[in-house]
Amino acid sequence: MSHIRGRFQKAMDRLVARYTSSLPSDWRLYRYDIAGSIAHARMLAKQGIISEKDAEVIVQGLESIQEEIEQGRFDFRTELEDIHMAIEARLMEKVGEVGGKLHTARSRNDQVALDLRLFAKEAINQTLLKLRELQRALVSLAEANKDVVIPGYTHLQPAQPVLLAHHLLAYFQMLQRDIERFKDCLKRTDVLPLGSGALAGVGYGVDREFLARELGFGRASQNSLDAVSDRDFVLEYEAAASLCMMHLSRLAEEIILWSSAEFDFVELDEAYATASSIMPQKRNPDVAELARGRTGRVYGRLMALLATMKALPLAYNRDLQEDKEGFFDTVDTLLATLEVFAGMVATLKVKRENARRAAERGYLLATDLADYLVRKGEAFRTAHDIVARLVSYAAGKGKPLHELSITEYREFSPLFSEDVRSITLESSLAARDVVGGTAPKQVARALVRAKRISHARP
Amino acid sequence: MSHIRGRFQKAMDRLVARYTSSLPSDWRLYRYDIAGSIAHARMLAKQGIISEKDAEVIVQGLESIQEEIEQGRFDFRTELEDIHMAIEARLMEKVGEVGGKLHTARSRNDQVALDLRLFAKEAINQTLLKLRELQRALVSLAEANKDVVIPGYTHLQPAQPVLLAHHLLAYFQMLQRDIERFKDCLKRTDVLPLGSGALAGVGYGVDREFLARELGFGRASQNSLDAVSDRDFVLEYEAAASLCMMHLSRLAEEIILWSSAEFDFVELDEAYATASSIMPQKRNPDVAELARGRTGRVYGRLMALLATMKALPLAYNRDLQEDKEGFFDTVDTLLATLEVFAGMVATLKVKRENARRAAERGYLLATDLADYLVRKGEAFRTAHDIVARLVSYAAGKGKPLHELSITEYREFSPLFSEDVRSITLESSLAARDVVGGTAPKQVARALVRAKRISHARP
Amino acid sequence: MSHIRGRFQKAMDRLVARYTSSLPSDWRLYRYDIAGSIAHARMLAKQGIISEKDAEVIVQGLESIQEEIEQGRFDFRTELEDIHMAIEARLMEKVGEVGGKLHTARSRNDQVALDLRLFAKEAINQTLLKLRELQRALVSLAEANKDVVIPGYTHLQPAQPVLLAHHLLAYFQMLQRDIERFKDCLKRTDVLPLGSGALAGVGYGVDREFLARELGFGRASQNSLDAVSDRDFVLEYEAAASLCMMHLSRLAEEIILWSSAEFDFVELDEAYATASSIMPQKRNPDVAELARGRTGRVYGRLMALLATMKALPLAYNRDLQEDKEGFFDTVDTLLATLEVFAGMVATLKVKRENARRAAERGYLLATDLADYLVRKGEAFRTAHDIVARLVSYAAGKGKPLHELSITEYREFSPLFSEDVRSITLESSLAARDVVGGTAPKQVARALVRAKRISHARP
Amino acid sequence: MSHIRGRFQKAMDRLVARYTSSLPSDWRLYRYDIAGSIAHARMLAKQGIISEKDAEVIVQGLESIQEEIEQGRFDFRTELEDIHMAIEARLMEKVGEVGGKLHTARSRNDQVALDLRLFAKEAINQTLLKLRELQRALVSLAEANKDVVIPGYTHLQPAQPVLLAHHLLAYFQMLQRDIERFKDCLKRTDVLPLGSGALAGVGYGVDREFLARELGFGRASQNSLDAVSDRDFVLEYEAAASLCMMHLSRLAEEIILWSSAEFDFVELDEAYATASSIMPQKRNPDVAELARGRTGRVYGRLMALLATMKALPLAYNRDLQEDKEGFFDTVDTLLATLEVFAGMVATLKVKRENARRAAERGYLLATDLADYLVRKGEAFRTAHDIVARLVSYAAGKGKPLHELSITEYREFSPLFSEDVRSITLESSLAARDVVGGTAPKQVARALVRAKRISHARP
Repeated sequence: MSHIRGRFQKAMDRLVARYTSSLPSDWRLYRYDIAGSIAHARMLAKQGIISEKDAEVIVQGLESIQEEIEQGRFDFRTELEDIHMAIEARLMEKVGEVGGKLHTARSRNDQVALDLRLFAKEAINQTLLKLRELQRALVSLAEANKDVVIPGYTHLQPAQPVLLAHHLLAYFQMLQRDIERFKDCLKRTDVLPLGSGALAGVGYGVDREFLARELGFGRASQNSLDAVSDRDFVLEYEAAASLCMMHLSRLAEEIILWSSAEFDFVELDEAYATASSIMPQKRNPDVAELARGRTGRVYGRLMALLATMKALPLAYNRDLQEDKEGFFDTVDTLLATLEVFAGMVATLKVKRENARRAAERGYLLATDLADYLVRKGEAFRTAHDIVARLVSYAAGKGKPLHELSITEYREFSPLFSEDVRSITLESSLAARDVVGGTAPKQVARALVRAKRISHARP
Repeated sequence: MSHIRGRFQKAMDRLVARYTSSLPSDWRLYRYDIAGSIAHARMLAKQGIISEKDAEVIVQGLESIQEEIEQGRFDFRTELEDIHMAIEARLMEKVGEVGGKLHTARSRNDQVALDLRLFAKEAINQTLLKLRELQRALVSLAEANKDVVIPGYTHLQPAQPVLLAHHLLAYFQMLQRDIERFKDCLKRTDVLPLGSGALAGVGYGVDREFLARELGFGRASQNSLDAVSDRDFVLEYEAAASLCMMHLSRLAEEIILWSSAEFDFVELDEAYATASSIMPQKRNPDVAELARGRTGRVYGRLMALLATMKALPLAYNRDLQEDKEGFFDTVDTLLATLEVFAGMVATLKVKRENARRAAERGYLLATDLADYLVRKGEAFRTAHDIVARLVSYAAGKGKPLHELSITEYREFSPLFSEDVRSITLESSLAARDVVGGTAPKQVARALVRAKRISHARP
Repeated sequence: MSHIRGRFQKAMDRLVARYTSSLPSDWRLYRYDIAGSIAHARMLAKQGIISEKDAEVIVQGLESIQEEIEQGRFDFRTELEDIHMAIEARLMEKVGEVGGKLHTARSRNDQVALDLRLFAKEAINQTLLKLRELQRALVSLAEANKDVVIPGYTHLQPAQPVLLAHHLLAYFQMLQRDIERFKDCLKRTDVLPLGSGALAGVGYGVDREFLARELGFGRASQNSLDAVSDRDFVLEYEAAASLCMMHLSRLAEEIILWSSAEFDFVELDEAYATASSIMPQKRNPDVAELARGRTGRVYGRLMALLATMKALPLAYNRDLQEDKEGFFDTVDTLLATLEVFAGMVATLKVKRENARRAAERGYLLATDLADYLVRKGEAFRTAHDIVARLVSYAAGKGKPLHELSITEYREFSPLFSEDVRSITLESSLAARDVVGGTAPKQVARALVRAKRISHARP
Repeated sequence: MSHIRGRFQKAMDRLVARYTSSLPSDWRLYRYDIAGSIAHARMLAKQGIISEKDAEVIVQGLESIQEEIEQGRFDFRTELEDIHMAIEARLMEKVGEVGGKLHTARSRNDQVALDLRLFAKEAINQTLLKLRELQRALVSLAEANKDVVIPGYTHLQPAQPVLLAHHLLAYFQMLQRDIERFKDCLKRTDVLPLGSGALAGVGYGVDREFLARELGFGRASQNSLDAVSDRDFVLEYEAAASLCMMHLSRLAEEIILWSSAEFDFVELDEAYATASSIMPQKRNPDVAELARGRTGRVYGRLMALLATMKALPLAYNRDLQEDKEGFFDTVDTLLATLEVFAGMVATLKVKRENARRAAERGYLLATDLADYLVRKGEAFRTAHDIVARLVSYAAGKGKPLHELSITEYREFSPLFSEDVRSITLESSLAARDVVGGTAPKQVARALVRAKRISHARP
C-alpha cells in the first residue's frame, strides 16, 4: 500500500488526489504518528538496525515537526495523501536522506493501524471520564431531590409512584454498563500492531516488546495479516457509542417531555435551552433535541463502517481509509454530548409540586390496594379483579380513591377496613423495599453506592 | 424556533454554542439563503407589506453580503447559530433597522426548509449530469471494445460467454434507473415551503405563487405544518444515492477483480490507480476501493436521518438540524464518485486476449450444447443431463470440449454429429438473439439506443 | 445457478440443506411462479418451441398443483431448495418427462426475478390501497372535528394555535408523497425479466412481448445481465416503506403523547388500546407503540439488503436469495400497520375541551400580537421585542394576556389600543389565510381537496 | 403492562390481535418462562408468601405444561398475546385459582426480561461453543497445509508471500476477539431482573438472592426501572454478532475468490457447494455466498433494534416487544453460519501447486530485495527506489527476477552479488521472523498456541 509514484508518468489529477486524500480528516493523528515514529526510531537504534546518531537526528526532526504543527506553522499540502506522508515528506526536507531510514522495518499499513489505536485508546479514556462526570451529575441531581415523587410510567401512562432519584439512578446504571463496555473495548484496543509490516511481518530483528512498552501498549498483536486489516476496535467503540447515545436519547426524550407545558416537571437552565424570540418565557430544549437527533448520526457511522468492512478480503484494502472520519465524528459527538448532558442535568430545576400532583392523579396506588387484599388473604388474581372493579367505579364517579368511603370500598370486598387509608404515595414507595426497588431506604443505599462509584476511577 | 435571547440573562456558554451551532456545515447554503431573502423582500414590496424602497435597501444589502462571502471577506462568527442568523446579523449591521423588516411574514422554520430545497434541487440536477457523464463513459468504453468477449459469471464462476459491451450496458441500465429515481425525487423536492411561517402559515397577505415563480419552484406546499417538518426530499435523495452507490460498488468490485493478477482483464490508467513504492508495475485500484468503501458511508447517512426522523412529533424539532451535514456529505460523495468513475471507466484499457482466453476455459458452451440437442429433438432436461455427463467426462480427461472426437460425443447421444463443431464462442453469443440478450446484433442496437440516451438531457 | 446434483456423490447434509433452502419463506411466491410458468409454456407453444399438446399438459399440471397448494394438500419437502424446485419436482411427478420441456429457454435466474416482480407489483398495489384507506380515515377524523383547536408545537412546546384538521392534513400530505413514491417504484418494477436466461439471454426465438402482455408487464427488460441481478425494485420498495413507516411513527408518537394523562387530547377506542389489569380506566396505546417500534424493523430490512447487495459482481450470486425474507416482512409489516392505523384513526375520540384549554394556556397569541403591531406600523423585529417584553411581564405576573389591562399593554407600546382584545384563538387561526395555512377557510378547502383525492384511485 | 380486559367491552378485533401478538415468535421462550415461574413459586413459598402446598401444585402444573409443549400437545391459541399469557392461561385451566398466586410479587415486565435473559445466556454459551468449533477447523486446515505458500494480498494485488496457515490464523485471531466480546456480553447479561415488578420493585419480601441462585444468575439487578426497560444485552449480542458475521463475510469472500476459476487455490467439498445442472465440474460456493449475504441481515437486525430503542421514555413501552424476533433471528443465523463454516473449512481442499505458482508470479520478493540492499548498507528509501527500477526493468522484459543475470542486477546497484540468488519464497517467509510474522518458525508456534486455545473452554 505504499504509494510513491514509480513508473507512473502522468500526474494523478487533482480530482483523484482530492478523492483519495485522507489528510482533511487524519491530520489530527499527527501526535500519535510522531510518537509512534519516535518510538520506532529508538527501537531501530537499540536493535542496531540504524545508528544511535541517525535515530537522534530523526527524533529531533520529528519533535520539531510536532512543534510546527502545534504552532500552526505546518503546511498541510493537500496533494499529499495522508498525515503520514505529510510528516514523512517534511522530515525528509528537514533532515535529508537519513529521514528515509525511519521507514526501515515498517510499512504504512502497520503505521496507520498504530496511530489509530493510539488515538482510540485516548478516546476511550476521555469517554470514560465524561461518563463518570455525567454519573456524578445524575447523583447530585438525585441527592438534591431525594424525596421528590414522580409518576412512574409504562406506555407513557402513569403506573406507580417512584422517587425521582430512583428514576435518575436507572440512567446511572445504563452509564455504568457503558463504562464497562468501553473498558472491555479498551482491552482489545490496547494491542501494538507495529512490526506487522505491510502484511507479513517485517524482515528485521525488531523488538516489539520494547515498542509496546514505549508506547504504553499492554501487548503486541499475534498475527500480522490480522493486525493490518483489523478495525474491530473502531467498530466496537462505535457500537458502544451507539448504545450510549441510545441511553442519552432516552434521557433527552424524558427531559423534553418533562419540560413540556403538559408535564412541566422540570425547568431547564437557560444555558441549556433556547428561548423563542417572542415567547421568552418558553425554554426550548434544543440541547436535548440535538442530542436525540445525533443518536441517529452515531448509529449511521456504525452502520457505515460495518457495511464498508463487509466481505473485504485480507489484508489491507484502501476501503479501510473510510474508518477514520466516521470514528472521529463518533468520538467528537459522544464526548460533546456527554459534556453538555453533565451540565444540563446538573443545572436542571425540579418542580416537585407539579411532579407530586401528577403522581396523585390517576390511580397509581391500585397495585398497593391489591397487595393490601393479598396480605389480608385474597388470592392474587382475585385481588386484582376486585381492585380493577373498584378503580372503574371510582373513575366512573370521577373520584380519587381517597375520596371513596369505607362503605364504598367494602362493596367490592369485605376485607377492606379503615386501615386502607394508610395506603399513600409514601406507603407505596416504602413497600417496594427490595434491592433495586423504589423504597426510600433502598434508594438511599443505592445513592451512596452510586456516589462512591461515580467518584472512583473508571 | 426563533432563538434570540429574551429574559435569558446568562450567556449560553461556549460549549453549548458549539454543540448547537450548524454554521460549520450550513454556511454553504448562503447562496440559497440570499436568493430566498431577495425573492421574499420583493414579494413583500409587491404586496405592499413593506415599501419598495425598503425592499431595495434590503436587496442591495443582501447582494453585497453575497459578494463579501464570495470574496472571502465575510466574518463567520461561530457564536452565531446558523447561516441564516449570520446573514441576518450582517444585514442589520449594513442597512440598520430596515433589515428587520425582511423577516415579516417569515420564520426561520420555513426559511431553512426553503434553503435546503433550493440546495437539493441544484444537487439533483448536478447528480443527473454526472450520471449522464458516466453513462457516456460506459458507452464509449463499450464501443471501443465492441467485439471483446468475456466470461459471464454467476457465483463468480464462469457460466456463459458474453460481450464486454453487454456487460457494461448492464451498468448503463442501472444508472438509467438511478436517473429516473433522482428525477422522481426532484418532483417532490420542487415545492416552495415559504409562507408556512413557524408552523401555522403566515398572517400576512403573501403571494406564494409569485415566490414560487421567482425562485423557480413548480408549486407551493399545501400544508404549513408539513412544510416546515418535512425532510422526505432529503431522505429520498439519500435513498436514491444509496442505490446508486450500491451500483457503483458493484462496478468497483468488478474493476478490482478484473485488475487482479488472477483475472487480468483490464489495466487501470495510472491516473486512477496507485503504484506500490516497490512494485511499480502493480496498479492498486485505490479509487475503486475507496468508492466501494464510501458506499457504506452513504448508507450510514441514510440510516442516520431515518433514525433521527423516527417518532418526531410535529412540527419543527431541533433534531431536524441534523439533516444537513449528512445530506451535504452524501451529495459530495456521490458527485465525486460519479466524476472519478467517469474518468476511470473512460481510460480503462481492456486486455482482450486475456478475457477471451478466460472465456475459452471452462465449459462455457455447455448450455449451447444442450440447446443443440434440444433443437435436434431431445427433451430439455434430458439434454441437460447428457451434456452434464459429457462435460464430466471431458473434465475428467482434462480436455476442452473441442478436443473431444465426434465418437466420444456420440457415446453420450446419437444426436451429436459433425455440426457440433460449429458451436463456438461466436455462435454462442449469436444465439442469444433476443431483446436484452448478448447477441452482437442485439448489443449493437442496445449501444445505439444507449448512446442516444446518454447524450439527451437527463 | 441450476443446482441439480451432477457428479456430486455425497449428499449435501441436512444442515447445509437447511442453511441454503429458501422454501420456508419463498413458498408464498407459488402463485406467481405458476402464473409465470403457464405464460412461458403458452409462449413456447406459440413460438413452436414445444408442441401445443405438451403446453396443454404442462398448463393443466400447473393448475392442479396450484389447487393442491391452495387446498393444503401440497407436500413442501424441505430438502427442496426453493418454491421453483418444489413445483418443478411435483410437475414431473404429475406429467412425467414432458414437464422438463417447461424449462426450455428459461433459467431459474430469470424465473426467480419474474416471480419476485409479480409479487412486488401486487404488493405495491395493495400498499397504495391501504394508503388511501388511511388517508380517508384522516379526512374523516378531520371532518368530524373541523373546528377543534389544538396547540401547534415546535420543540414540543406550544407555539401557535392550529386546527386539529390542519394538523391531521399534514399527515395526509405525507401519505400523498408516499403514494407518489410507491407509484414511481411501480414504474421500475413493471418490467418483465423473463427471456434473460441464466445471464446472457436465451438461445431460442422467444416472444418477450407476448410474455409481457400475458403477465401484465408494461415492458421487457433491456439487458439480460442486469435483469437477473437487479433488485432495485425491492430496495426502492423498502426505502419507500421506511419513509412511510417514519411518517406513521410520527403519528404514533403524537397519538401516544395525546393519549397520555398529561396531554389528554384524545381517547383511543378500546379496540386499539390495551387496558392494565388493575387500572382498567387506563388505555395503553400498544398499537401505536408497536407501530413506532416496527419502524426500526423496516429500517433494518432496508439496511440489510443494501449491505447484502454492496459490491456483488455481476450477474447472479446466491447472496441475492436474501432479498425475499426481508421484503416479505417489510410488505407484511407496512400493510398491517397501515390497516391498524386506519382503524385506530377512524375511531379516535377527540377531547376538544382539553385541547382548547391547552391552546389557551401559554402565550400562543404572541405572534398575532406582534403582527398587530406591525400592521399598526411597527418594524417587524421591534414588534417582536415589544411583545417579548410584554409576555415576560405577563408571565411574571402569572396572568394570561387577556387579563392584562389596556394600560398595562400601553406601557409596552402606545400602538396598543382597545382593539387588541379582538386577538383571540379564532382571529389567530383566521389570520393564517394563506395556501397551506391553518385559517378555517383554507383548511375547509384543503379538506375538500383531500377528500376528493382520498376517494380517487391511487 | 398487564393486559387482561377490564371494562373494555368490545373485543379487540382479530387484526389488532394479530398485530400485537408476539406468540408466533416468543413461544420458543417457553422453557425459560417455566423455569422462571418454578423458581418464583419456590421462592414465594420459602418466604411464606404462598403456602408450600400451593407452590407444589403450581410447580407440578408448570412441569406438565412443559411436557405438553415438548410433546406437541400444547394448543398455542393465537388470540393469546404471548407465551407468558399462554402458559398462565393453561396453568389456570390445569390447577384452577391457585395458579393465580404465581403472579404475586411479579409482573409481566420483569417476567419477560427474565425469560429473555435466560435465553440470551444460553445463546451466548452456544455461540461460544460454535466459535471454538470453527477455530478448531481453521487450526486443523492450517496444520494439514502447514507448508503451503500463497500470495499475500493488499488491494487484492499480490504483495508478499505468506503461509496459508498464517493467513488462516488471522481468522483465528478475529474469532478469538469475537469470543472475548461474547464473554464480556455474558457478564452484562448474567443479571436477574425478577423482583423489579412492573417498574418500581415489588411490594413483598421476596428473596432475590435465592432467585438468582436458583436460576443460575451471577447477580441481581440494582434498579427496577432500568431492569424492566434494559435491552442492552440484546443489542450487545447483536453488535458482537455483526462483527463476527463481518469476519465470516471476509472469509466467505476469500473462499469465493479462491474457488474461482481465476484463482483456483481451493476446492470446496461437494457438501458445501452446489453444482450447476449442466457444468457439473463447477462448484458454486453457495454456502459462502449465503453467509456473505446474511451478514447484511444481521447488521439490519442490529440497526432495527437501535432505531426501536431510540428515545423511548422509561420504563416499559410496547415497542420493546420488537426485541425478540430480531434477536432470535440473529442467534439462529449466527449459530447456523458458524456451524456450516466449521464444516466447510474442515473439508476444504487446498490446491497447493496453484497457490505456489501464484506466489511465484508477480514480483513478490521485491521487498526482500530491498531489505537485502539495506542489510548491505543502502538507505531504506534508496533501496526501495533501486528495487522499483529493477522491477520495472524486469517487467518490461517480461522476466521474473530469478531470470535476470547478476550483471543486469548490478546495473541497478553494485551492492548486488551472487548471494541475491538466495532470495526465494522460502527465504522471504523465513525472514519475517518476528512475533506475528509469517516465518514458518513463528507460524508453527502460533499454531501450537492456537490449537491449545481452541481446545480450551471458551
